[in-house]
Amino acid sequence: MNKTPIWKSIALSLTSDIAEGRYQTGDRLPTEAQLAATHGVNRHTVRRALSDMADQGLVHSRRGAGVFVATRPTEYPIGKRVRYHKSISASGKMPGKKILALTTRAADEAEADALGLETGDTVHVYDGLSLADGQPIGLFQSVFPAKRFPDILQILTETQSVTKALQRCDVPDYTRISTRLTARAATATQALHLHLSEGAPVLFSIGINADPEGNPVEYGRTTFAGERVTLTLNED
Amino acid sequence: MNKTPIWKSIALSLTSDIAEGRYQTGDRLPTEAQLAATHGVNRHTVRRALSDMADQGLVHSRRGAGVFVATRPTEYPIGKRVRYHKSISASGKMPGKKILALTTRAADEAEADALGLETGDTVHVYDGLSLADGQPIGLFQSVFPAKRFPDILQILTETQSVTKALQRCDVPDYTRISTRLTARAATATQALHLHLSEGAPVLFSIGINADPEGNPVEYGRTTFAGERVTLTLNED
Repeated sequence: MNKTPIWKSIALSLTSDIAEGRYQTGDRLPTEAQLAATHGVNRHTVRRALSDMADQGLVHSRRGAGVFVATRPTEYPIGKRVRYHKSISASGKMPGKKILALTTRAADEAEADALGLETGDTVHVYDGLSLADGQPIGLFQSVFPAKRFPDILQILTETQSVTKALQRCDVPDYTRISTRLTARAATATQALHLHLSEGAPVLFSIGINADPEGNPVEYGRTTFAGERVTLTLNED
Repeated sequence: MNKTPIWKSIALSLTSDIAEGRYQTGDRLPTEAQLAATHGVNRHTVRRALSDMADQGLVHSRRGAGVFVATRPTEYPIGKRVRYHKSISASGKMPGKKILALTTRAADEAEADALGLETGDTVHVYDGLSLADGQPIGLFQSVFPAKRFPDILQILTETQSVTKALQRCDVPDYTRISTRLTARAATATQALHLHLSEGAPVLFSIGINADPEGNPVEYGRTTFAGERVTLTLNED
């Protein structure tokens, strides 16, 4: 990891300003000349920063009018009741899911611990991509105990929705009992799926969902595209 | 951000295994020969990965005995009642704080919005470093309304603790009303303070704390050292 080039620092600083709400969707950013003066660099450097942000879908330029904030990071609530479809809709974006793989295999130690299984017990695994307005925001892996939910992969091919699939498996409701979050560098595969540069920061989450009796039904790992997603936690 | 070298991929994979609890503190990792076979690389590459992890304080080698997991990432709970000192103690580590700067300045837009002030109103700002067992885990900035807490910076020089300082300012208790999380790349300054490489993933949090009447008393930004901290959220 080498020294960050100046154009990249400027792009990161402007991205932070957008993430913190200093510039809102549709706002015009300061002109290239103003940004160059503020950061003490030439306009070429500013142009490089803005071009990088445009590549990420953060800003877009309108000829003669300036550069505008294109999208705010998708806000995604974490907490007891997380429902992907509803959350993304609430943030004003169109939710979508894409199935990448449906696999049946042996549980690893972390999965077994979380789901109350023995290491090596069979689990069904749903790998997929979460989309907001068609843009990938998270790469997820949901792991289910195969014995309890023998047909869940078949149901997931029809519904794509974990909530609906669990309902059809006689789990009418579920809640999040634990969430663990950390920041990581995107691997090559993650970067490919999430349209990021390899090594870009991602937010890695491990969540456990349980049925109303408190029995774990799903162990989920999600890699969120770092600067494209803000996880929010509001206490009432 | 170039292609990740193989040694780095191996280090990231082992770090993930530790973060997910597959290897616990004090566990011996597989031997260099085993790791080389597993990953299909030569032992030199494995040694480079382990040496990088040792530099980060994640593993240490004992001559003739192998390589051991040195520390698990510090677990730090997020939720309604976050108390730094208590949380770090609960994770079995020694909490510490270091004051970096105490400043009085005009509030920016995000701070004013959060604290119910006008942009440009005066705020007192506490910049510091959070430590666990002497290792830096977070770089924080706490912003307080100056009008309500005129003497808070003086009190912070004595207590270092936000909880104690607010108590002495007649705020006997406070709760977190909102948390926003995202992943970012460490800037040069953040990397320096957090003992990371520039560009390493960090977890960036914005939190608002309010007094029992619901009035915001603190606006905090924290940059957590990505792979050294796991934020946890448990629902009861």
